[in-house]
Amino acid sequence: MSGWQGRVPTDAVELAGLVPFAGPAPSTQADKDARRARKVVGSLTEAISRSGLGDGDTISFHHHFREGDLLILQVLAEVEALGIRGLTLASSSLNACHGDVVGYIERGVVSRIYTSGMRGTLAARISRGGLLPHPVQVHSHGGRAALMASGELRPKVAFLGVSACDEFGNANGTSGASRCGSLGYALVDAMFAETVVLVTEQVVAFPNTPAVIRQNRVDLIVVVERVGDPSRINVGATRTTTNPRDLLVARRATDVVEHGGFFVDGFSIQTGSGGAATAVTDYLGERMERRGVKAGWALGGITGSMVALHERGLVGRLLDVQSFDLVAASSLERNPGHTIVSASEYASPAAKAACVDELDVVILSALEIDLDYNVNVLTGSDGLMMGASGGHCDTAAGAKLVVVVAPLIRTRIPTIVERVTTLITPGSNVDVLVTDYGVCVNPRRPAVAERLAAAGIKVTTIEALFARALEICGRPRAVETTDEIVGVVRYRDGSVIDVVRAVAS
Amino acid sequence: MSGWQGRVPTDAVELAGLVPFAGPAPSTQADKDARRARKVVGSLTEAISRSGLGDGDTISFHHHFREGDLLILQVLAEVEALGIRGLTLASSSLNACHGDVVGYIERGVVSRIYTSGMRGTLAARISRGGLLPHPVQVHSHGGRAALMASGELRPKVAFLGVSACDEFGNANGTSGASRCGSLGYALVDAMFAETVVLVTEQVVAFPNTPAVIRQNRVDLIVVVERVGDPSRINVGATRTTTNPRDLLVARRATDVVEHGGFFVDGFSIQTGSGGAATAVTDYLGERMERRGVKAGWALGGITGSMVALHERGLVGRLLDVQSFDLVAASSLERNPGHTIVSASEYASPAAKAACVDELDVVILSALEIDLDYNVNVLTGSDGLMMGASGGHCDTAAGAKLVVVVAPLIRTRIPTIVERVTTLITPGSNVDVLVTDYGVCVNPRRPAVAERLAAAGIKVTTIEALFARALEICGRPRAVETTDEIVGVVRYRDGSVIDVVRAVAS
Repeated sequence: MSGWQGRVPTDAVELAGLVPFAGPAPSTQADKDARRARKVVGSLTEAISRSGLGDGDTISFHHHFREGDLLILQVLAEVEALGIRGLTLASSSLNACHGDVVGYIERGVVSRIYTSGMRGTLAARISRGGLLPHPVQVHSHGGRAALMASGELRPKVAFLGVSACDEFGNANGTSGASRCGSLGYALVDAMFAETVVLVTEQVVAFPNTPAVIRQNRVDLIVVVERVGDPSRINVGATRTTTNPRDLLVARRATDVVEHGGFFVDGFSIQTGSGGAATAVTDYLGERMERRGVKAGWALGGITGSMVALHERGLVGRLLDVQSFDLVAASSLERNPGHTIVSASEYASPAAKAACVDELDVVILSALEIDLDYNVNVLTGSDGLMMGASGGHCDTAAGAKLVVVVAPLIRTRIPTIVERVTTLITPGSNVDVLVTDYGVCVNPRRPAVAERLAAAGIKVTTIEALFARALEICGRPRAVETTDEIVGVVRYRDGSVIDVVRAVAS
Repeated sequence: MSGWQGRVPTDAVELAGLVPFAGPAPSTQADKDARRARKVVGSLTEAISRSGLGDGDTISFHHHFREGDLLILQVLAEVEALGIRGLTLASSSLNACHGDVVGYIERGVVSRIYTSGMRGTLAARISRGGLLPHPVQVHSHGGRAALMASGELRPKVAFLGVSACDEFGNANGTSGASRCGSLGYALVDAMFAETVVLVTEQVVAFPNTPAVIRQNRVDLIVVVERVGDPSRINVGATRTTTNPRDLLVARRATDVVEHGGFFVDGFSIQTGSGGAATAVTDYLGERMERRGVKAGWALGGITGSMVALHERGLVGRLLDVQSFDLVAASSLERNPGHTIVSASEYASPAAKAACVDELDVVILSALEIDLDYNVNVLTGSDGLMMGASGGHCDTAAGAKLVVVVAPLIRTRIPTIVERVTTLITPGSNVDVLVTDYGVCVNPRRPAVAERLAAAGIKVTTIEALFARALEICGRPRAVETTDEIVGVVRYRDGSVIDVVRAVAS
């Protein structure tokens, strides 16, 4: 009739559906000690075993170390040794350093991939067909967060590489040896994965504050020698440039930002990656000082150049989903105005708000752009995957002024085409194209064209630039493809906006 | 056969189950402008209407302003005006300032309550029975997070008062006028409520970083004149004391901390609220300097005294679920070692880790403690509810050394009783009782008793202290209760550990 120590009238109607107290949990010193450090396990193999990972499950990773990632291949080796097969590999992106994933696909360990992009051997091999049993699902950064929220992409186990964490799993990317800075992509995995395994180089004293990945999302912790090589974060896409052509494009793009109608005190900007795009940041500082205009905030992949503007007082806040170099990574620690946003907060169309929707100006790159201003940042002119969707379509959907920068011609191949090989960002979200041969404005933004012309910027048409490119290069040969679908391009809302066909060999 | 612009082969087996792109969303300047500021609505009434709140739903609040809360009554007035009835009021706690909730109960607007505790008129009226149709569910701070995680407590609408936020809903308690500091309890509501309404005194420029409540959890924003009076945060439970008896107890408790076995470099501590408990913090600083011992971190409700220890370098980190005064609230802004933890991270038994499990020492108060060391912090000697469960049973379950401080006698009523009126924390989780008449140690911790004795601290038994109290006061009259259950006390794991019966009038 009555429960613990006569206090709980278990048959009272007021307690219907409730469980009576069963007595306090064992609470000896040994019990309390055992509760501590229970998350830290001895090896990756032990973590995988304890996670319950099985055939056909999804494993996820972040790509904050970019070309310096050392974790995916370590995990795949252990997974294979345990005999687990048919996995979905869901990394926020994949890079040239992941070429050895090919072997794991060939041996049946990996059979599906979700990623923002691919480069190098892995990308080329998959693009030629006949390797991966199912097409790669290519998503944007915001789209990945939305796929996780919708449940299509729910990792069984997220393996998140961090430089340091405490024994409860409080982690950031700004302490320890191999610091990657922001953990913006990883935060989404930490939220949605069934089991979160932190793979760390060091377990430090509790509490490892400020914590970005929080203890209440972490199940297991493994210490390995190295999770990543931060010196390789800015290899590849995020390089700075000394190429005079890139610098010319960057200067013109800066002119467009200055005169496009949104260069007013408090404006916001994302400058993206790619040689010319990052160079814009440096030029922008000069214009801001000259004109006495300060930016309210900058978003996205944050570079050392952007940190410099922040530290000079020219950019009020930095919202960092991904630190593009070591300067940015270390700035997070010392600059209170430089904070992390998760990929969900950054760009998810499924979130209650995404920063991209507050953006004034974004500078984006392109592998191809067509006469409708549609942009391809995934496949090269040879039809092989070689880039990444990234935040391209996310920021283009949100920003008030979307400026694409690209050289008109790359190794005798025009960047402007009649129809992009692969569609990532619809042209209705692209406003201006800046090339080394001239600037053109999407006809749906006449006011922008007028402002640029009024500032003395020579504005041409994309058709004229296309004609100029053909004059120089001739019309490029079409890429021959087979029927095999090797990639499915997901728009940020999860819908299929294009497919990638295998390149005929 | 094929979707958007001929790119998507909708009948391909590889696309089974996926949705083809339907064309880009409208993306004119007006559309983009409309997306901004869509969350900010003109009035509380409008926010309530747009939230879809209906009869029988649950509305939730945080109590970071403690006795200065101005929000609950504002919302109830608007809810009543809209004719909504039968609500569950789920505030992380309720205080004496909420006396007018009685009227809303009488008029049928509120029919259930979840709270950590109650004080004043509301508590007295409910305790006398016949008012609230269902018993109050009394939970701990960690238990509330667990009830939300389990789904028993899922607010339809959380109304979260903040001093300032941006138009997307990025908020913290450290900017704007009425700053409450930590938003640790509110973070749980922001995570679990179906609709999150920020009630703010000010909308500031985006991005309001560092953001504690994040934009991607916020649905609606309402500006009101005042959400809370921060000068009343430290009224009541968290007052500092000049009472010589409290100071005596505090000094003795500090002796116990110093010699109880856990006063070593890097130790951790929570000193809780209540006059004597907060005074311990000041004494502790002297002992730490004298002995050359530094604490690694302090947890819980953070006071100005604890901030002073942090700023003197005596406490490494502050983990703040609730700022107990304005000094603590402002410290969050300037001290990088002082960070916020959510109630889940603080103490939830359902979370993957709770800070309380890493705690070495906790100082707790008691309204009653019985011969089995069971503690009551909810009901007074008159049987009326007058306190709060708070983090009492959470920290007692986690900490290595649990020290309860209390005067032996309050207004001629002994604090030590044969059996506590209401059980909040089981005695098996309580180690030491410090009173103004002596110190006793739970027999299940003989090693602690030996250490204290070895340090020259006179240790007596709880039976001896009980006898002394009876000598002075005589045996108090038993409280007469009716059969009506007015409160259900939930242990941190959600189980029912006791009930509160109505006091017979």
